[in-house]
Amino acid sequence: MHLRGFTNTGIQDILDKAGVSRGAFYSFFKSKDGFGLQVIDYYTGIFSQITAQFFEDKSRPPLERIRQLFLWFVEYFKSMGYTRGCLLGNFAQEMVDLNPAFRERINVSFDSLAGQFESVLQEAKDSGALSHSMNIHDAVQFIISSWEGALILMKVRRSTDPLETHMRFIFEYILKG
Amino acid sequence: MHLRGFTNTGIQDILDKAGVSRGAFYSFFKSKDGFGLQVIDYYTGIFSQITAQFFEDKSRPPLERIRQLFLWFVEYFKSMGYTRGCLLGNFAQEMVDLNPAFRERINVSFDSLAGQFESVLQEAKDSGALSHSMNIHDAVQFIISSWEGALILMKVRRSTDPLETHMRFIFEYILKG
Repeated sequence: MHLRGFTNTGIQDILDKAGVSRGAFYSFFKSKDGFGLQVIDYYTGIFSQITAQFFEDKSRPPLERIRQLFLWFVEYFKSMGYTRGCLLGNFAQEMVDLNPAFRERINVSFDSLAGQFESVLQEAKDSGALSHSMNIHDAVQFIISSWEGALILMKVRRSTDPLETHMRFIFEYILKG
Repeated sequence: MHLRGFTNTGIQDILDKAGVSRGAFYSFFKSKDGFGLQVIDYYTGIFSQITAQFFEDKSRPPLERIRQLFLWFVEYFKSMGYTRGCLLGNFAQEMVDLNPAFRERINVSFDSLAGQFESVLQEAKDSGALSHSMNIHDAVQFIISSWEGALILMKVRRSTDPLETHMRFIFEYILKG
């Protein structure tokens, strides 16, 4: 689903991959959409853990932790051949106009990830590494949304250049103290 | 297709909407994918015309023309109830990992739109409104990719806030002279 998208992945693909019967699938999930919502939560959980690993590393200054997270993703997407991108962004792009439950769930996921970023930027602000006039809430929204766009361009360009350009502009122009 | 996505739009939907027969459709297009590629070109043409209308308005300073374009889109997406987003971004998200022809076509479209932005930023640089050290190519890549991401967030938030945040950060931090 991460690579092929939600609509392009059939129930049968899921059953084959998981090695479970149709009956077992429907005893756990009401529908394919219901399964999709669980996929969002599962992906958000994994993503949140990866993020926390970097953000809770107090041996580095706050802004450096964010940089390390993005660098990790650059390497990850190189290893994936510039495919997949962010499942939240993909599902958002594909599903929010079609099913309101997807929109609500993705909205909550973005809020939760934004909260993790806000804590680190607040730490940076408190330590004097970021200007006191910086609106942290808006800065995080911009960092996350521009990252989602950079992932689209990465897939189109088949290159991590858009991710590296994103990092450069975020750190040189926005998170510059 | 703009609202529902490529995969979610069936051939029959297209025939019904256009009022043409299956035979007529296949006399013009080899396949649904072939039709999708034409949709990309058609959309890029319209988008390029809208952009040119703003960018060629020499009565305004270059950066102001870019701002006016984004403001126009904010109003457009309000009138669309925060749906649809950018067809290029949607098709990229949905199709580039599945069909290389989509990737190539969208890549060309982004290059062509980037060219329009680069001309205006060059004018801004020449007039002294932008720093001479600004890397115009990279700045345009960042402006376009972050816009694509802001459109994803717009759909998730059901609000033009992400588009307005995008404008504010681009103009206050990046295109600030």
